[in-house]
Amino acid sequence: MNPLSKKAGIPPGSMVYIGPGRDSPALVERISYNRDSLIVEQISSGEPFSGKADMINLILFHGVHDVQAVHGLALEFGVHPLISEDIVNTMHRPKVNRDDQHLFLTMKTCYTDKETSSVRFEQISFLVTGNTLVCFRENADDFSVKIRERLASKDSRLRNSGVDYLLYALLDYFVDNYFHVLEQLGSEQDGLQEEMLDLPAAEHLERIFKLRRETSALRQAIWPLREIINSFLNHDEGFMRSRTRAFFRDVHDHCLHIMDSLEMLREMNTSLHEVYLSLASHRLNTVMKLLTIIATIFIPLTFIAGVYGMNFEYMPELAWKAGYFICLGFMALIGLGLIGFFKYKRWF
Amino acid sequence: MNPLSKKAGIPPGSMVYIGPGRDSPALVERISYNRDSLIVEQISSGEPFSGKADMINLILFHGVHDVQAVHGLALEFGVHPLISEDIVNTMHRPKVNRDDQHLFLTMKTCYTDKETSSVRFEQISFLVTGNTLVCFRENADDFSVKIRERLASKDSRLRNSGVDYLLYALLDYFVDNYFHVLEQLGSEQDGLQEEMLDLPAAEHLERIFKLRRETSALRQAIWPLREIINSFLNHDEGFMRSRTRAFFRDVHDHCLHIMDSLEMLREMNTSLHEVYLSLASHRLNTVMKLLTIIATIFIPLTFIAGVYGMNFEYMPELAWKAGYFICLGFMALIGLGLIGFFKYKRWF
Amino acid sequence: MNPLSKKAGIPPGSMVYIGPGRDSPALVERISYNRDSLIVEQISSGEPFSGKADMINLILFHGVHDVQAVHGLALEFGVHPLISEDIVNTMHRPKVNRDDQHLFLTMKTCYTDKETSSVRFEQISFLVTGNTLVCFRENADDFSVKIRERLASKDSRLRNSGVDYLLYALLDYFVDNYFHVLEQLGSEQDGLQEEMLDLPAAEHLERIFKLRRETSALRQAIWPLREIINSFLNHDEGFMRSRTRAFFRDVHDHCLHIMDSLEMLREMNTSLHEVYLSLASHRLNTVMKLLTIIATIFIPLTFIAGVYGMNFEYMPELAWKAGYFICLGFMALIGLGLIGFFKYKRWF
Amino acid sequence: MNPLSKKAGIPPGSMVYIGPGRDSPALVERISYNRDSLIVEQISSGEPFSGKADMINLILFHGVHDVQAVHGLALEFGVHPLISEDIVNTMHRPKVNRDDQHLFLTMKTCYTDKETSSVRFEQISFLVTGNTLVCFRENADDFSVKIRERLASKDSRLRNSGVDYLLYALLDYFVDNYFHVLEQLGSEQDGLQEEMLDLPAAEHLERIFKLRRETSALRQAIWPLREIINSFLNHDEGFMRSRTRAFFRDVHDHCLHIMDSLEMLREMNTSLHEVYLSLASHRLNTVMKLLTIIATIFIPLTFIAGVYGMNFEYMPELAWKAGYFICLGFMALIGLGLIGFFKYKRWF
Amino acid sequence: MNPLSKKAGIPPGSMVYIGPGRDSPALVERISYNRDSLIVEQISSGEPFSGKADMINLILFHGVHDVQAVHGLALEFGVHPLISEDIVNTMHRPKVNRDDQHLFLTMKTCYTDKETSSVRFEQISFLVTGNTLVCFRENADDFSVKIRERLASKDSRLRNSGVDYLLYALLDYFVDNYFHVLEQLGSEQDGLQEEMLDLPAAEHLERIFKLRRETSALRQAIWPLREIINSFLNHDEGFMRSRTRAFFRDVHDHCLHIMDSLEMLREMNTSLHEVYLSLASHRLNTVMKLLTIIATIFIPLTFIAGVYGMNFEYMPELAWKAGYFICLGFMALIGLGLIGFFKYKRWF
Repeated sequence: MNPLSKKAGIPPGSMVYIGPGRDSPALVERISYNRDSLIVEQISSGEPFSGKADMINLILFHGVHDVQAVHGLALEFGVHPLISEDIVNTMHRPKVNRDDQHLFLTMKTCYTDKETSSVRFEQISFLVTGNTLVCFRENADDFSVKIRERLASKDSRLRNSGVDYLLYALLDYFVDNYFHVLEQLGSEQDGLQEEMLDLPAAEHLERIFKLRRETSALRQAIWPLREIINSFLNHDEGFMRSRTRAFFRDVHDHCLHIMDSLEMLREMNTSLHEVYLSLASHRLNTVMKLLTIIATIFIPLTFIAGVYGMNFEYMPELAWKAGYFICLGFMALIGLGLIGFFKYKRWF
Repeated sequence: MNPLSKKAGIPPGSMVYIGPGRDSPALVERISYNRDSLIVEQISSGEPFSGKADMINLILFHGVHDVQAVHGLALEFGVHPLISEDIVNTMHRPKVNRDDQHLFLTMKTCYTDKETSSVRFEQISFLVTGNTLVCFRENADDFSVKIRERLASKDSRLRNSGVDYLLYALLDYFVDNYFHVLEQLGSEQDGLQEEMLDLPAAEHLERIFKLRRETSALRQAIWPLREIINSFLNHDEGFMRSRTRAFFRDVHDHCLHIMDSLEMLREMNTSLHEVYLSLASHRLNTVMKLLTIIATIFIPLTFIAGVYGMNFEYMPELAWKAGYFICLGFMALIGLGLIGFFKYKRWF
Repeated sequence: MNPLSKKAGIPPGSMVYIGPGRDSPALVERISYNRDSLIVEQISSGEPFSGKADMINLILFHGVHDVQAVHGLALEFGVHPLISEDIVNTMHRPKVNRDDQHLFLTMKTCYTDKETSSVRFEQISFLVTGNTLVCFRENADDFSVKIRERLASKDSRLRNSGVDYLLYALLDYFVDNYFHVLEQLGSEQDGLQEEMLDLPAAEHLERIFKLRRETSALRQAIWPLREIINSFLNHDEGFMRSRTRAFFRDVHDHCLHIMDSLEMLREMNTSLHEVYLSLASHRLNTVMKLLTIIATIFIPLTFIAGVYGMNFEYMPELAWKAGYFICLGFMALIGLGLIGFFKYKRWF
Repeated sequence: MNPLSKKAGIPPGSMVYIGPGRDSPALVERISYNRDSLIVEQISSGEPFSGKADMINLILFHGVHDVQAVHGLALEFGVHPLISEDIVNTMHRPKVNRDDQHLFLTMKTCYTDKETSSVRFEQISFLVTGNTLVCFRENADDFSVKIRERLASKDSRLRNSGVDYLLYALLDYFVDNYFHVLEQLGSEQDGLQEEMLDLPAAEHLERIFKLRRETSALRQAIWPLREIINSFLNHDEGFMRSRTRAFFRDVHDHCLHIMDSLEMLREMNTSLHEVYLSLASHRLNTVMKLLTIIATIFIPLTFIAGVYGMNFEYMPELAWKAGYFICLGFMALIGLGLIGFFKYKRWF
Repeated sequence: MNPLSKKAGIPPGSMVYIGPGRDSPALVERISYNRDSLIVEQISSGEPFSGKADMINLILFHGVHDVQAVHGLALEFGVHPLISEDIVNTMHRPKVNRDDQHLFLTMKTCYTDKETSSVRFEQISFLVTGNTLVCFRENADDFSVKIRERLASKDSRLRNSGVDYLLYALLDYFVDNYFHVLEQLGSEQDGLQEEMLDLPAAEHLERIFKLRRETSALRQAIWPLREIINSFLNHDEGFMRSRTRAFFRDVHDHCLHIMDSLEMLREMNTSLHEVYLSLASHRLNTVMKLLTIIATIFIPLTFIAGVYGMNFEYMPELAWKAGYFICLGFMALIGLGLIGFFKYKRWF
């Protein structure tokens, strides 16, 4: 539940990687660009991280488990020990931190694990200092390719804007992941509903609760991010240019939209749970009612059979030639009469 | 669930139409008016959108799927790329956006689909620049006719007020649609309740949840609109004339009224759900209780029949002449006694 | 549900009466008073409404369905069209509206309908201009008599205070009506609980939900009123004299008290619902358990009878002289044993 | 429910005692003290209430039903009519009221009625004017003795502080009563839980709801008091000395603590309700399951007995010498087999 | 429930120890340090508590039940009586209190009791005055050892920072305990879920509610602490150095993280409760359905046996040679047919 307890009792500022263990060194890539040129370099361990002063430098740091490399970078850029601790601690709550030289922002992005079709979170940290932006994460995906594509054209807005716009573009990219996950959750919920209407089973309940937990986890991840971007918009001290402002407001709107959709998903989930309970109990009731009706039809008939099975010496009907057949007919009449009565009462 | 994910990963400011696909070009109508004259024109694609500078120009833009045309208009009026993105993205959350030249407002109106009798939303965007108001929407209805009727008379307040009053008149028109939908939902809920009291069926539950989802969706649409109009009233920078102010406050009151009614609908819906559950369980209980009572009456009788069906050699009653009839009478007595007892206990 | 939709699409400021239709003209009474004299006049349609400038004028306007008369008064006192619209629209949310010359306040009062014993609301609007207070409502009751009684004595506080105190006295009168209704609801709820404890029936559930809806409606009516009086106390611009202030604060406290009581009623209602469900299920369980116990007692007995009804050629017990009676005794033993066992287990 | 409705329609400022009727005149005691001397006097009706100007005067007024005496005191101290109305109206919501000369504070204290073991509230009002503090309540208890004991010692803090500390000491005394009641409720709840675990009965449900109502009533009484003391701490205009401040903050903390405990009690109550429902249904299920199992064991046996009771002419088993015993053995086998199967399945 | 009621009615400022009784005197240890030296001393009762003025003094006070010793320390450091009362009263709500010379902060830490595996809380109070920090608690654990280890190295941040950093380090230590407890609760909840899926039992419900109560208690303990640290960050009057500020913000973030995790735990607990109810009812339904199916299969068969047990004189089938075997075969057919039908309907 709370791997953070690994850290309890250790002096603050100690860097302890919290997450699934890894051994390989971090993969670090530096993309330096300005209007005129675009340089992409791999940085081996030991090399300095800083790029050219007259270019915008985007450092993609993959593998925050490599505490050593994070420490080196933190030293080089003069980062507060608590912040390097936060980068490595991948269980952190989204937060923003500013001082004179640095802007630090950590958030969570999410994706759906193809195999288990469950939601996974990944912590992304951004460190802005001067015209350098470092993006820390654990796993590499095709993100680096996409960003290079968008930087390829000399006329792209990304190429011609400052580091503030670059931060926006990255934030936007990782926030947009939520929409994929929302869509996935929505369609999973719809599929679940259809299956349930066919035959409600106990495992549906489990899946309903899994979806509920995921919706909660998404809300816990996006809620502080919204706050952060909001405080960012309201108390910006000279970092953001006025024309980038509108873009950050747009990310903020996306967060609100995601929260609305989560609210909607949550309500649908609650309805789904109620529908499940209702369907399961409806099905049970139908079965029990039908069984009880069958029993109720036979009980009077068995009683009649019992009567004529009595051994009284004088029972006139027994001596009748057609007694047996009259009795059978009478039983059929009662049986059909009861069935008719139950049908009329719409009991089945 | 979230067609917005179509957009994820695409550079911001890209215009992607989100909604049911269409091919036809946009239909654009410009109504220019002042105290003296009223001109209605259809604008073909390629023509400039701007009207006369000394008149108030209302541009009704039907068909936001025509990304090209929206782009053209945006260019002509100098609109920020993010805003033209928002116009085209019909899944947007209601919002307001102001800069020096432009006032942009997007909201949702709603109507009930005649065929499926479910609630549909439509996004309406307003762009005010100078004395021109552009109203973007996807579908054309008789709105254009109504607005021209109200502009026909030279003495109408609409004809004699500024572009701020025009914006109010349009907002008021689209907010009023909510009242129609509320009435529809209310009468649907009342009808549902009556049907349910007759015979509660599983499909009623589904309809209860449909109504609940619709109530939620309406609340999600009207809630940010109320906020927007409120912020509009509190932080207006020279756009609104003081005598139009009262009218905007009136729309604000309508929003509050709608939210109150939605709250009421929601509570009624919850009650309806509880009534359904209670009725369904009451009905089942009545049936099961009656069936169990029938069984309980026959069980002792069958036991008696069983006793006299035993083959003991010495059973004095069997030899009695009237034994059989005494036995039958005794059984009838017990049966009627039990029925009387259950009646007395008010068990059925 | 929402008669307001009658108004949707009509130009704003149009006066449309919303409520049960009436034909008769409005009844208007003017009570003018100062320290020295007290004049009560009926105002026929067409006569001016304004009273003497050196007296305080209370105009009681009964019958807001008479749109013509309201229009006339609005014109005479220079009232904004939106306000005259609000007076006539009796579905309005409580609100307050101030401009330089006028103070407009609309609220809801409530009473219990004697016949249906359900809560009815009536909209009361107040318009203060100069030293004239107009009180608009639909129905006349003994209110006019009561106010004249209080004005009769030359030494009454009402007679010696300004129009602000007059407004307070009227507000206080209409707010006090809520206490009557609260008491009525409370005693209805208590009666319901007693009936339910006797024998829970399906119609009790309906009455529980009726009470819940009424409690909600009362809250929706009193909540904005409290806000209004609060904003009134905080942002008064010269209308209220300092010694009247304490009285308005008193009305505010009454609103808070009403809201507390409503909260309490609501909680009692929820408990009542839970008690109903619990009682109904308890009753059903008692019945079913007893029936099942009866069946369970007879089932082994019937089995024994069945055994001795078998036709095996060699069954020694059958030949015993006392076999039948031993068998009956054994059955009685088993029956009583089971009853004793169930008693011991406290199953009934 | 709402005895306040007695007051509806009566001119404001009228003093109407709301509470159980009494006839006896009020008992008024005045304790005047300073560093040097301590005087305790009974004040008969008609005598002036004011004490010595150079001493601190604590007037304990028991019996607010004596409207005449309250009126006399109000006149003597120049109290606003609305405040004397509030003193007499014992259903009032806790509130504070300040003007130039007076500080008026009304709160509720609570105690558990020994006989019915239910929570009772009593309204306590404090009026501070100059160095006189009047404490109004309906019933006398040993409070007066306790306060005199604490004043007895010349070195006690109470004796050496101002009227502000005196007010604190009284507030603290009456707030501390809540802790007694909380403890009582807590132990009642614990006892209830134990009884329930023994055998859940319908009357437990009633007691659960009684406790819930009492918890709500306590919250409604303490919540506004907390607000009052808070506003007192934040907007004090020269009444409180700085060293008394810490003591008032302490009472404020006690209110918070009480609210936390109430929240905890409420949650425990909800759990208790859920445990009750769960236990009651568990017990019913155990009984029904056992009964059904008994029936299910006998049904196949009865069938076999029925088979050998058939009258076919050729049934070979019937002629076997040991047929009957084989049959009985077979029945025993089936019966034991079923019991074993149900045990194995852990069905009972 | 509320041992605080021990205190009700006693003059404020009286020190009454609230907690499990103890007799032994308090154990007091003083750790004085600066850059150059580190002195650890045991302080016997009667000795002065103050350390050297030019060193930072950490006084670890174990055993707040020793009211005498707390009183002595309070006198020596000039602490307000209400604060010494709060130190001793171990049921206090977390709070902060500042005056010119002192900073007082009380919080709750938590740990899991090894034996009962339930959550225990311990109150920790901090008193800062000059460069002395006193840490009051009831029980001694290995905390003192850990803090001395961290002080051992001359280069540790703790050794080289002020009393503000020392307070941070202690706060951080006690807040980190929450993570251990969270982890414990989380794994307990997971274990419970697994056990439940095996066979839901009544005692699981009890454990679910125990976990819920503990989650609530943790929230009640951490919530005010978060507020306190927040107010600390916002209204610090010269106590904190700017570089310590970031560390306090880090503790604040930990509190937020704990609250998020508690929220998550709470939701999981609710789900667990719903899963329990669902599983228990599912299991019962399966059993009852199967039993009813068994009964339903035998009822028609028993009826047939009854029919051929009738004693009519003329029943042709009885005379057939193979009658008995045809009848048995027919019964088997009906029985298998019903089983097939129920299987086909997926009823078991």
